[in-house]
Amino acid sequence: MPESLPDLIKALAGHDRAALARAITLIESSRSTHQEEAQALLQKLLPKTGKSTRIGITGVPGVGKSTFIEAFGMHAIAEGHRVAVLAVDPSSAKSGGSILGDKTRMARLAQHDAAYIRPSPTSLALGGVTRRTREAMLVCEAAGYDIIIVETVGVGQSETEVADMVDMFVLLLLPGSGDELQGIKRGIVELADLIVVNKADGDLLPQAKRVQADYAAALKMLTSQSAKWQPRVELCSALSGEGIPTVWQSVIQFSDLMKSSGEREHKRSAQARAWMWKEVRETLLERFYTDARVIRLVPGCEEQVMAKQITAARAAHKLLEAYFA
Amino acid sequence: MPESLPDLIKALAGHDRAALARAITLIESSRSTHQEEAQALLQKLLPKTGKSTRIGITGVPGVGKSTFIEAFGMHAIAEGHRVAVLAVDPSSAKSGGSILGDKTRMARLAQHDAAYIRPSPTSLALGGVTRRTREAMLVCEAAGYDIIIVETVGVGQSETEVADMVDMFVLLLLPGSGDELQGIKRGIVELADLIVVNKADGDLLPQAKRVQADYAAALKMLTSQSAKWQPRVELCSALSGEGIPTVWQSVIQFSDLMKSSGEREHKRSAQARAWMWKEVRETLLERFYTDARVIRLVPGCEEQVMAKQITAARAAHKLLEAYFA
Repeated sequence: MPESLPDLIKALAGHDRAALARAITLIESSRSTHQEEAQALLQKLLPKTGKSTRIGITGVPGVGKSTFIEAFGMHAIAEGHRVAVLAVDPSSAKSGGSILGDKTRMARLAQHDAAYIRPSPTSLALGGVTRRTREAMLVCEAAGYDIIIVETVGVGQSETEVADMVDMFVLLLLPGSGDELQGIKRGIVELADLIVVNKADGDLLPQAKRVQADYAAALKMLTSQSAKWQPRVELCSALSGEGIPTVWQSVIQFSDLMKSSGEREHKRSAQARAWMWKEVRETLLERFYTDARVIRLVPGCEEQVMAKQITAARAAHKLLEAYFA
Repeated sequence: MPESLPDLIKALAGHDRAALARAITLIESSRSTHQEEAQALLQKLLPKTGKSTRIGITGVPGVGKSTFIEAFGMHAIAEGHRVAVLAVDPSSAKSGGSILGDKTRMARLAQHDAAYIRPSPTSLALGGVTRRTREAMLVCEAAGYDIIIVETVGVGQSETEVADMVDMFVLLLLPGSGDELQGIKRGIVELADLIVVNKADGDLLPQAKRVQADYAAALKMLTSQSAKWQPRVELCSALSGEGIPTVWQSVIQFSDLMKSSGEREHKRSAQARAWMWKEVRETLLERFYTDARVIRLVPGCEEQVMAKQITAARAAHKLLEAYFA
């Protein structure tokens, strides 16, 4: 990257989308010189970050995530906001990118000046994807985007990690019976600050209303994350646009409430501290996992523990002894 | 401990409760020679373990956990079983033991020959408590107990850890409105294989039935842990004993189903492997957390990260650099 950091920072401040793309590419690079530059960039940008509403959106494939994000994003833009969409999709990362490119999925939004869509990186492990997303979020904020959407597929490992990096977590559901919802991972419902039943139109409307009532009742039985906000369930048809203004209103209400109550700042600083420790843990473990002496012992230890030939503590001791030898 | 390991093992095989208490005390000891002996003991006992049904029971203070466990345990004994109760209660550990001793709490059960009740250790951190409990569970199995109950307070950090060491997780609820249930930690409902509404008697019966219906509906909206078992909600009055046989039947049904489907063995070997990695992770992190160079830097790093003066990655890097220097 021949560009100087001051130039890049200036371009970002000027809302230059190409500069934003370059900055995120720098963050995603695994080259150590790029990593150093990326960290220097983030350090410089830090005072300019934090002014967006960070929204995680998840839902199983087929729920209409792209259509919803496009409709929601266009609505936000019409309300005077600038919208960035970051995708976290380790499965597409494995297969080398989304099946349909993210920009094809959300063509109208992608073409809008006030929007920026970043597809999933294709060559990072999950830990790398979530770190990249956290850092890309900061860069988007520094580039003046005030609505950041982090999208996950809803069936993987990444939902908790995304919930831990946003202000608000939204779960999209289909109008359908419980059986069709089994694709949702355990624990996701309890992460949601807002549930949106999409495709609530035409013949599906009665079913959508039933799902709404069922989940509204279910949410009452669960402990909500915030003392101030009771998660709610709303209907929308991302295709027709119906219900999108209501969803938007809920997001704004939630966001205002979290800001005015101080919950947002409190949550964000706790998240930042947690990220620091996460980085520490991941580095410590990666060193361990990739140690040649450990690698040699792992298969035997796992096998013996699973076959009840050795206690978990003894097997762990064996691995640790080899590592610290 | 002057007793030889072979003597202790023999006493355990002979269902000697005093020997069981000594073995668990050995496990709880932090002296390194005791730790070595404990691990040698567990290694020897390993082939004799695994024949019990491992049940985690949780619920907020006031739900009647002791009364329930006593009634449930006495029922199991009447059905020909031997029952061990292990308490995981880091809050009581902090304050130096349960307010009422566990044996006072469950006087009838404590006095029965076919039961063994072990109070919370008073001097271990949470990680130590859960490790001790896992290992004590194995010793109880080797000593012929075939129903192991692991009890937690339901408001702390230990519920997930307990769910990860048992076959079945039971949540006790009070008959009451949602507000009264807010003491239950987020995520606990989704861990439950069985929910029991206690105190379902007298004036509270109609309320208890409503809670039952509400949670039965809510559970349908959540993804269940097992493909074969849909979590259910039952009523009981631990005080009068009403409903206890039904709860017992559900436990047996669940247990039989998990055994015959192979899910139990699958889950247990996955748990054992997870325990090994947990021990590894905890040791690696403990070394890090207790490193003098790290300790010196942590407060400053945390503060700067929370105040947005430094990125999480940079702060982590600083700590790691000091550690590996």
